[in-house]
Parts: sequence; C-alpha cells; structure tokens
Amino acid sequence: MPTEAASKVRVGAEDLRALVTGIFAARGMREPDAGAVAGALVWANLRGIDSHGVSRVPRYLELFDKGESVPGAQPAVERPRAAIAIVDAHAAPGPVAMNRAVAEAISGARECGVGWASVRGTVHTGAIGYYTSQAAEAGMAAVGVVAGMPTMAYAGAHGAAVATSPLSVAVPAGRHPAVLLDMATAVMALGRIAQLKAAGKELPPGVAVTPEGDPTTDPALAAVPLPVGGPKGAGMSLVFEMLASGLAANPIVPAYHSGDRRHRQNAFVLAVDVSAFLPLEEFTAAVDDTVDAIKALPTADGAAEVLVPGERGHRSELERLASGIPLGPKAWRELTGTASSLGVPVPDPAG
Amino acid sequence: MPTEAASKVRVGAEDLRALVTGIFAARGMREPDAGAVAGALVWANLRGIDSHGVSRVPRYLELFDKGESVPGAQPAVERPRAAIAIVDAHAAPGPVAMNRAVAEAISGARECGVGWASVRGTVHTGAIGYYTSQAAEAGMAAVGVVAGMPTMAYAGAHGAAVATSPLSVAVPAGRHPAVLLDMATAVMALGRIAQLKAAGKELPPGVAVTPEGDPTTDPALAAVPLPVGGPKGAGMSLVFEMLASGLAANPIVPAYHSGDRRHRQNAFVLAVDVSAFLPLEEFTAAVDDTVDAIKALPTADGAAEVLVPGERGHRSELERLASGIPLGPKAWRELTGTASSLGVPVPDPAG
Repeated sequence: MPTEAASKVRVGAEDLRALVTGIFAARGMREPDAGAVAGALVWANLRGIDSHGVSRVPRYLELFDKGESVPGAQPAVERPRAAIAIVDAHAAPGPVAMNRAVAEAISGARECGVGWASVRGTVHTGAIGYYTSQAAEAGMAAVGVVAGMPTMAYAGAHGAAVATSPLSVAVPAGRHPAVLLDMATAVMALGRIAQLKAAGKELPPGVAVTPEGDPTTDPALAAVPLPVGGPKGAGMSLVFEMLASGLAANPIVPAYHSGDRRHRQNAFVLAVDVSAFLPLEEFTAAVDDTVDAIKALPTADGAAEVLVPGERGHRSELERLASGIPLGPKAWRELTGTASSLGVPVPDPAG
Repeated sequence: MPTEAASKVRVGAEDLRALVTGIFAARGMREPDAGAVAGALVWANLRGIDSHGVSRVPRYLELFDKGESVPGAQPAVERPRAAIAIVDAHAAPGPVAMNRAVAEAISGARECGVGWASVRGTVHTGAIGYYTSQAAEAGMAAVGVVAGMPTMAYAGAHGAAVATSPLSVAVPAGRHPAVLLDMATAVMALGRIAQLKAAGKELPPGVAVTPEGDPTTDPALAAVPLPVGGPKGAGMSLVFEMLASGLAANPIVPAYHSGDRRHRQNAFVLAVDVSAFLPLEEFTAAVDDTVDAIKALPTADGAAEVLVPGERGHRSELERLASGIPLGPKAWRELTGTASSLGVPVPDPAG
C-alpha cells in the first residue's frame, strides 16, 4: 500500500519510547513506570502488532481521566509460597503490574524451578508476548495468559460470552530468535478486526457474527468475534478465565453476566527455569534443531516459506529498529498533540 | 444406532478394570502398575473417549512384544529443585509414568504453590484429562500436555510435521463437576478420525488432507489431520513439543524429520495449589458461578443447551457407571480372548 506508507512517518524506537515515557511521566506516573508502559507499547509496534502499540496512548489517558487506572499506583505483591506470587495491580497501568509479575515468576523459578505470578485487577496489559519474551531472555520457558472483558462468542451460545483471552508461550533458542507464540483464542484478534474495519476491508468468513448472531464478512456489521475451533477456543478462553481470574480472586465472567461491566483484566505468568532441567545450551540447541526441521519442510498451500511462531515479529523488529516505526498521520498527530499540550518535547521523525 | 448398540455388551467399570488389570499383571506388570494402566483406560471409556479406552489393550501388548515398552519398568524420579520433578519413564507404560508425574506435581505444588513434572520417554499416555482431573480432585488447578510422534500438518508445510499434541486444563468446582478441557491441537483428534473411518462415515470438511496435501472428506483418503485454526494449532503443537520434549531432553520433532521414527512420547503436568492463593471453597464457588453464567446464556446455532468443558464426559461417566461400559463385539472378543489365553478370569457382561 504505497499511498498509506507514503503518508506515514517513521519514528525511531528510542525517540518514540522517550516521547511516550514523557507523556506518561507528565500525567503523573513515576519515571520508571512511565518507561515500563512506553516499553510495552513500543515493543508491540516494533513487532508489527500496531493494534497494541502507541496508538493506545489516548486510551490509557482516558482510563486515568475516568479513574479506572491510577498513574501513581504501585502494585502490592504477596508471596504466599516460595514459587508463587500474587500481584495486586491496584489499578496501575497493565505493563507496570505485568513487568512485576514477570520478575516475580522468574524469581520463583530461579529458586524452585518453576514460578507462577497471578495479576489481579489490572487494566490493558498490552501484548502478552512482551512479558513471556522477557522471561525467555532470562533463559526461562514461559507461559502467559490474560483474562478480560467478555467480547467473544462461546460455542452454542448467543452474544458476547467470554474474552478473547490470549495465550503466549515463549521458549529461548540459540542461533534462532526465541520462539514466541502469541495468539488470541478468537479466530482473529479484536485489534486486527478493528484494523480491517478502519481500512474498509472485508473480513474473511468465519471470523465474526452480527449482533443478531448471523455470520458476516462486513467489518461494520461484525459485532462478536468467533472462537478459534469453536468449542476449543471457547473452552480455552473459559478455563483461562478460571486460571487467571479465579486464582486472582477477581472473577470477571460471572460478574459481567450479572451486569457488572467495569473494565478490568487479570493475568498470570508462568516461568520455568530451563537450567534446572538440563544445561540451557542443550535446550536451546534442541529448539534450534526443531526450528530448522520445521523450516526445512516442503511448503504447501502456496506458502513462500514455513514460519515458526514469532519469526514474522522478529523480522519486523529488525526492520523497524533499523528504519523506524511507521505511524499513521492520525496516530502521530494525536501523540504529538498530547505531548505538546503536556510540555513534552517532540522528536523529528523521518518523513 | 440401535443395531450397533444391540450388538454391544455392557461391562461394569469395576469388572472391566479387574479384567484389564489381570491381563497386564499376567503380562508381567506389577499389580499396582497393571491397575494404573487399567484405571486410565477404563476412565477414558467411562468418559466416552472410547478411542483411548480398553480397545488399546492389544496396542500395549504389542509394544511389550516389540520391546518398545517394558512391563516391569519403574520410572526414575529426579527432583532437581523443590517445585519440579523429572520422571524418566524408562519405557514403562504411559499411565505408570503419568500417575507418578501427577503425584510429583501435586507434591511440588503443596510445598511451593505450584509444581511441574516433566515426563521423559513414555509410550501412549492415554487420555491426558485423566491426569489433570486427578490433580483437580486434590484441589489443584492443573495443566497437562503430551508431545508425540508427528502426524499432523503444520501451517504452510506439506505432509506430517508435528504431533496432534493435546492440551488439558482441569479446574476444581464446587456444586458442579470439575471443569475439564481436553483437546487435541488438531481440528479432530486422530482417534475420532479412525472411529469415523471404521464406521464408514464421511469427515467434515477442513479436518484432514490426502498424502498429496489435497483437502478430503473421505476418511479412507485422509492421511494428515489439520491443525485447529491453521497457524494457531500448529504453533501450539510446536511450542508444546519444545516444553514437553525440550525440557525432558528428548526432542521428537527434529529426530523424526531426520529419520528416527521410534514411537515415544514426552509430557508435562503442572499443578497449582488453589488454597495457596485463596480458600479453596471461594475458588470453587467462583468456578460454579462462572459455569452457571455460561450455561444461562441464550443458545445459538441450534444448540439445545450450552455446555462447559468436561460436562459431556461427566454425563457419560454417570451413565456408564450406572449401566456399564458399552463395548463392540470385536473389542470384547479381543479382550476376552487375550484374558483366556493368559488364564485371567472373564466377567459375565450384561448382554
């Protein structure tokens, strides 16, 4: 899409992180916490997950304005047993609570071999793969799940029933970048549906239904995304709610269907210390061999090559680290407008 | 299907367990180990997962005959850190190693809040839900994954690439039975495809491809099952292989694609001690409320009711506990023939 690309600006990742950190600091977040939110959003942009990137800044500020999120809030951590932690977000922005959860899960895993951190009552965690990939960088295999507000259909039921709860699994590799699965339990993530809607593009069939429950490929009519694999995606979302929200003592699904529709999310991060099982380099060599075996398979279905989870995102990261992050004119205008109104200096993007 | 049902015998679960225990004991397994295998197989029959039930007895005996599984083998357990265990199956039949893994994961969770047990080099684990549901009965939330021989397609690649690695999540409930997700990463589990093939029934579209990679609904031509959700199911299977086989230092996928096609499986079981997070009865009440909220939703797509994961299996269990387990004439003949040849007494089934 040359016209769309032409109208975009390219902003260096460091510049963008500084800009967004400045905005959040000016809105009352402590500097490291502001940097944590900026880090999560810019990571999503680098990885090509623009729906979870800096275009979300206005939404965070709106949550501050409404009091649903609190800029200066500090998560409280309980560690009832050696390998588990409960991080109460106290309405801190998602990345502040989630970064803490990753650190706690890693620390539990270092001590006990495996560590689990539950996060209670956070808002907008961002791209869950950001957190599991931090654990992978620390030599951990990691699993992350977020439970949120019901928006997705449940097999056999009418209307929004469960969340599109994502699952992420990250595994450290050696020669290759970490393998990073990050998937919604919906056929298509909400952010991607919104992107197609904004671009006026048709949805593939089987992605969503209308408010009346009829299948549609018209993004304007698409109201309820469908779970991947019918009962499988629906069932995963439901048990993820029980694991993430149930263990955090903050169930969302029953409250939602009783009429309590306050925005909130829960999550968990699991870290497994690979070096407790076998030497890390033996593990990462096996992961490399597995990646090589899959990528060496003959292609099918017109695919140009066989990709492993996270490979596309890694390529995007390399490209965008080198050439800057492309932002649409609206997103850039919003961001710089907000920055200027808060007295935060705006960097000069590459045109 | 009245004619099929009419030709079936109904065998009481206790009788069937005793019969199968007798067969395995006569083939050299220690009595408790023989009972463990019988327990896993009969549980699958009770739950209606007949593809993983006592019809597999001949396959276990064949693995003994070939030396791929060893009747008297005792798993060896290492516990390198407080919350993790590595169970080396030493070619013991799957349920012997898997039961040990569940016990180790529960024990790690009791001590540390969460426990992980990896299983190395087992054969035919059976229905993975059997193991996670044991943990749920002990008040644990549990996750189980098995990695096995590649039989499934991988998105964008030709031919069998990865395993249909199942994922199971079990969560204890209060008034309701435990919520039990047990799903293959394939659109349809291999056992179910085999059942439809045996019954001469057509497959739904999107389930499998021919050896040439062409879509087919003819079970006789179906060679390679497809992953659920394309890259999602394929990606889950791949990272499950890395978690289950990688941490067990026994990678299957790269070996398989280099020509080493010995049958083997690896697995892991994760147990989370609910009572370390909140009182168990608060958690199970929230699970009950969540189940109630989902089941109270208006139905869609012609569904008679909304079901939660494990509900159908629980109903089957109640019905089959009361009325016996229906076995086809071939399965019953094989089983009783084997028993008689080993001098194991055969119970009288209800006709």
